[in-house]
Amino acid sequence: MANSAEKKIKVGIIGATGYAGQELARLLYTHPETEVIWYGSRSYVDTPYSKVYGNMTSMADAPCKDDDILALSKEADVIFTATPQGYLAGVLTEEILSNCKVVDLSADYRLKDVATYEKWYKIEHKSPQFLPEAVYGLCEVNREKVKTARLVANPGCFTTCSILSLLPLVKEHAIDVDTIIVDAKSGTSGAGRGAKVNNLFCEVNESIKAYGVATHRHTPEIEEQLGYAFHADEAGVNEVPGGSPITINFTPHLVPMNRGILATCYAKLVAGVTAEEITKIYQCHYGEEPFIRFLGEGAAPETRWVEGSNFMDIGFVVDKRTNRVIVMGTIDNMVKGAAGQAVQNMNLMFGLPETEGLLLPPVFP
Amino acid sequence: MANSAEKKIKVGIIGATGYAGQELARLLYTHPETEVIWYGSRSYVDTPYSKVYGNMTSMADAPCKDDDILALSKEADVIFTATPQGYLAGVLTEEILSNCKVVDLSADYRLKDVATYEKWYKIEHKSPQFLPEAVYGLCEVNREKVKTARLVANPGCFTTCSILSLLPLVKEHAIDVDTIIVDAKSGTSGAGRGAKVNNLFCEVNESIKAYGVATHRHTPEIEEQLGYAFHADEAGVNEVPGGSPITINFTPHLVPMNRGILATCYAKLVAGVTAEEITKIYQCHYGEEPFIRFLGEGAAPETRWVEGSNFMDIGFVVDKRTNRVIVMGTIDNMVKGAAGQAVQNMNLMFGLPETEGLLLPPVFP
Amino acid sequence: MANSAEKKIKVGIIGATGYAGQELARLLYTHPETEVIWYGSRSYVDTPYSKVYGNMTSMADAPCKDDDILALSKEADVIFTATPQGYLAGVLTEEILSNCKVVDLSADYRLKDVATYEKWYKIEHKSPQFLPEAVYGLCEVNREKVKTARLVANPGCFTTCSILSLLPLVKEHAIDVDTIIVDAKSGTSGAGRGAKVNNLFCEVNESIKAYGVATHRHTPEIEEQLGYAFHADEAGVNEVPGGSPITINFTPHLVPMNRGILATCYAKLVAGVTAEEITKIYQCHYGEEPFIRFLGEGAAPETRWVEGSNFMDIGFVVDKRTNRVIVMGTIDNMVKGAAGQAVQNMNLMFGLPETEGLLLPPVFP
Amino acid sequence: MANSAEKKIKVGIIGATGYAGQELARLLYTHPETEVIWYGSRSYVDTPYSKVYGNMTSMADAPCKDDDILALSKEADVIFTATPQGYLAGVLTEEILSNCKVVDLSADYRLKDVATYEKWYKIEHKSPQFLPEAVYGLCEVNREKVKTARLVANPGCFTTCSILSLLPLVKEHAIDVDTIIVDAKSGTSGAGRGAKVNNLFCEVNESIKAYGVATHRHTPEIEEQLGYAFHADEAGVNEVPGGSPITINFTPHLVPMNRGILATCYAKLVAGVTAEEITKIYQCHYGEEPFIRFLGEGAAPETRWVEGSNFMDIGFVVDKRTNRVIVMGTIDNMVKGAAGQAVQNMNLMFGLPETEGLLLPPVFP
Repeated sequence: MANSAEKKIKVGIIGATGYAGQELARLLYTHPETEVIWYGSRSYVDTPYSKVYGNMTSMADAPCKDDDILALSKEADVIFTATPQGYLAGVLTEEILSNCKVVDLSADYRLKDVATYEKWYKIEHKSPQFLPEAVYGLCEVNREKVKTARLVANPGCFTTCSILSLLPLVKEHAIDVDTIIVDAKSGTSGAGRGAKVNNLFCEVNESIKAYGVATHRHTPEIEEQLGYAFHADEAGVNEVPGGSPITINFTPHLVPMNRGILATCYAKLVAGVTAEEITKIYQCHYGEEPFIRFLGEGAAPETRWVEGSNFMDIGFVVDKRTNRVIVMGTIDNMVKGAAGQAVQNMNLMFGLPETEGLLLPPVFP
Repeated sequence: MANSAEKKIKVGIIGATGYAGQELARLLYTHPETEVIWYGSRSYVDTPYSKVYGNMTSMADAPCKDDDILALSKEADVIFTATPQGYLAGVLTEEILSNCKVVDLSADYRLKDVATYEKWYKIEHKSPQFLPEAVYGLCEVNREKVKTARLVANPGCFTTCSILSLLPLVKEHAIDVDTIIVDAKSGTSGAGRGAKVNNLFCEVNESIKAYGVATHRHTPEIEEQLGYAFHADEAGVNEVPGGSPITINFTPHLVPMNRGILATCYAKLVAGVTAEEITKIYQCHYGEEPFIRFLGEGAAPETRWVEGSNFMDIGFVVDKRTNRVIVMGTIDNMVKGAAGQAVQNMNLMFGLPETEGLLLPPVFP
Repeated sequence: MANSAEKKIKVGIIGATGYAGQELARLLYTHPETEVIWYGSRSYVDTPYSKVYGNMTSMADAPCKDDDILALSKEADVIFTATPQGYLAGVLTEEILSNCKVVDLSADYRLKDVATYEKWYKIEHKSPQFLPEAVYGLCEVNREKVKTARLVANPGCFTTCSILSLLPLVKEHAIDVDTIIVDAKSGTSGAGRGAKVNNLFCEVNESIKAYGVATHRHTPEIEEQLGYAFHADEAGVNEVPGGSPITINFTPHLVPMNRGILATCYAKLVAGVTAEEITKIYQCHYGEEPFIRFLGEGAAPETRWVEGSNFMDIGFVVDKRTNRVIVMGTIDNMVKGAAGQAVQNMNLMFGLPETEGLLLPPVFP
Repeated sequence: MANSAEKKIKVGIIGATGYAGQELARLLYTHPETEVIWYGSRSYVDTPYSKVYGNMTSMADAPCKDDDILALSKEADVIFTATPQGYLAGVLTEEILSNCKVVDLSADYRLKDVATYEKWYKIEHKSPQFLPEAVYGLCEVNREKVKTARLVANPGCFTTCSILSLLPLVKEHAIDVDTIIVDAKSGTSGAGRGAKVNNLFCEVNESIKAYGVATHRHTPEIEEQLGYAFHADEAGVNEVPGGSPITINFTPHLVPMNRGILATCYAKLVAGVTAEEITKIYQCHYGEEPFIRFLGEGAAPETRWVEGSNFMDIGFVVDKRTNRVIVMGTIDNMVKGAAGQAVQNMNLMFGLPETEGLLLPPVFP
């Protein structure tokens, strides 16, 4: 595709003034094939975008617009919705989807089962009719489906990290899926830009805590996707709502840092599985993946090495004393866990190289 | 006991210029019954202590002395050794122990089994003859034994937090001990004051990582003590070296904060155990403990609420979907995890109120 | 004074759930002569105080009460008001002051000149009749007046640090007062606990900025007090409203840390003044001060060495190339800059040793 | 220039494993016209570069080489030396400069006067014969000279920020140059990756301090360049060694964050100069500069808005009470203060667009 302005992909962002929306703006600015034509933000209509995010001064000085997704769909080739749960489900129509493609960074179309969604999110789903066609946009898993999708449900940050950490072992039946525990740690940008006392600097700094213990909404998303992987070789089971037999413990923690997720995953090994086999499984699954860096046995990934990038790092240790494997995965929650993966999906949807605009080295220190 | 200078307990600190040594100096300064007469530091002999730790200016301006523990034992009533593994085992003699009491903050006398010590610490134990008399100074467990001890092995920071979090459930056989996983997170002071690239500000800040996965030296200490608790009702098993049947997974993580440990502990519940019973078990074990604050079901302790204090906070959640309990415990690794517990032990050894000098509220923010 | 409960000073805190109020609660808990009988908080009436500040669990579990200062004045011996500007000026009456003593941590009675107050704070002063009797509670300056005061205006955090850094040189006419520049840096607790986007963790972390440049409200407070010092040897000028001839530049900065203020102060030396003379001036003024630690020529104080304590550290450098002196002073904004100084004032007002309850070593790291 | 591998600029980095060297590696990876052929690091010879900096995994896995600059000069088109002071001066030869271009990130060729260099750096200058031809690589000032230079002295981080903040006002004689004070604040990456206790996480975190007060080595560099600007309209004075009449106070501070410099600059305004005129002066000087974002009167730049980018933000406030202007400038010390400016210089030296590879939006949060 030529790099001329008139042929660039026209992009609209609804929810552009949240952290994920801003990260989209950052990544799309250097993407050679896109042009942002709409910074949607109900709270900042008519305010120059760069007044909301000073980093974008001289790069995105256009005023924010309202959230008129229908109007936007007529101008844009693709819309990213970085909005609260329930927004897109409440406004999406066939007309919008016939006008342009949509990548939704909220949870509205991630879970195939409406009941599960409504139970965990405690809101009514307003447009379940689009669930069947929505593609779960975990590129490493659903690459082919994404290419032809009109509506992509961009995975959650914790889920991306957890699923990709464990999926090869689940798919190859190398671990006992009833023993999976995911202890995850996230930087504070995952909590969003809302003005809440609990997220003030002095409240988060110099502390760590668990939250949403046994109730975090990313749990069913992880369970559903790992369930598909577990049954991937059994015809008919894949992507059947409610068909997931996997139940895990997932505990997120808040860490005093801006970005980054580390998922420390525990599971019992199936009898006889060795570290060598585990290495082979990861190499086999991820050897060709441009954004997954498998660091091997004994490696403990650190979030600093992926910050600002779309990379995921994975390492593991086998504890022979307990016959458990500990798999550790890291991502930048704002990039591979949100905006970067959304751009990766967009690349696939528009026939671009999957890595276009995303091969940025992590920023350290 | 009168608060007159001539009757104060004379204290010597070997390893006074490490972080734990400094925390001892801080706590002992406000302790009404103690007087520090010896700041031992091989690296800073003759340097005023307050030049090494500027916070102690006007409070501890005496010059540091060498590590002559025998000479010190003749002047002091109690010696705290906040030294690397192997130091005390290499120099301790019957003469020293007959001169004064010793509280060792290193690991030298924590494990009853020499082979276990030598395997995990990879150094020879030079004075195993003192192992039988050394008391493991976890006050909430061994209070009575500490009172008459000459030599107390002060527990490790991770171990204090992990053991106290799980001990009541293990002792009451409320959880399946084969399913215990402790995912622990520590502030950076736990790494000590050595000049290492990995502990530079820019390397630790804005990152989280696991380390010592499946190999961390606090693992056997946790396993041994939980083993004693598990068998506590069976005569003869308690404190028999190598008698521990409990094997756990323990994974420490480094968090970009100065102080604090959070242990997130997972275990399968024994059939039929309810959240109400768990609450009762904790209340029964810890209801009278001055330094343990049981926050109840559903509470997720945060390290900020114990920073600078000798308190431990505990909360738990039962996940009925997986039949697991998630117990979370927090301490300040420098206080309850090191210097504070050492003072608590000293209080017991000298017949003082156990809380003397230690009822300091946590410092927030 | 005996340490029996019935003779303890009964303390009420209005604004107990702000950061300064909480720091008062912490300090008063370990103060041997006080008992907090009223945690006032309009926002948290009936909520246990320890649910608002988890660090105080088991130490301050009483429910918060409303802000009824008149009722409180009948029960308390002293009231601390850690409230927004204008609150105390709006409710203070002669009856309250006849019932009990008041230490105000707001700015309401710091400036003697009503017009200056109203110009910088942009609110009407509702009770200027109490201004003459209010004593500016900078203990090192007004110690004697505080002892007999009913109403003490506790100084601001930036002002305490800036005034004490410069006062000896101004008083001794060692610097040209027209050349004073104070470049101050503060931790984020100074911004309070209000839920504002600008104070979120991700907004403050990894950044530094100036704010209130040339307009910060602590400017006239510094100018007034330094003016008194400058004219201290001229009869009749001291404490005359509007009599200050000193005009300075004061620039505060927000630093990504919880606590601490560093004031870097610049001024031209009066011809012939040497570093030795400056050292003598500081030693002469502060040699007997229990909370001021003069570190001498060439020393650059660091906020970490005063954190959690009531100490102030001062050092200076003379630059012969420019004939300027650079004076650096550090305090903990929450302690010497707010709650600690308030307790110091209370000690003076009640005839207690000035240091009672305040000789706590700084907490490091 | 075509983007084919054989025509790419071959780049060698000496000192590749310091922070500035690593930032060069990051920026050059995404630069469309360069190829790094040599990661020089005496300490890590034969270690894969990505083992030293995990962020570069899969992007720079080549092993580090020794510091053989002569051999390198035969292979490379340009060498970046991110080395300690004195290194390049000790090894540079005419042969090297005839083989390839050199951009030096150390201070060896920044000061035109050897005596000044030796006085402030306390080392002998081993190759003063190259000083006359070395161009001071502050692109906004010496753009044309850089284009034809063989040897560029890349400015220091504090100096870049300080000079660019003040230069327009100095050049236009809008401020009294005898009153200039620069109070600068830097993130900790500026301290380098050496293993020093003072730079450990726990020592830097939660603290701020000044250092090198009145003695910091960037002082003469700022003074020399501002001196040139002040005399720029007087024939023959510009760039004459020792010709600088400007003497300033410069005080750096260490801030607990990874990246960023804020220079808060104070000076008396020349009589009659207004805020409007100052605005015009900045607009006139910097209106066309691609990397300088002038934010206008009343704006206080924040380091978070430039992090990870080559931008510099500038704002100012006029204080009519004191007739001083406070100019605030921010850069990322690793980018515009080091590696980014070095790439900007390289672009000029090779006839590339000055912004090539550098128009990356700042990364927030």
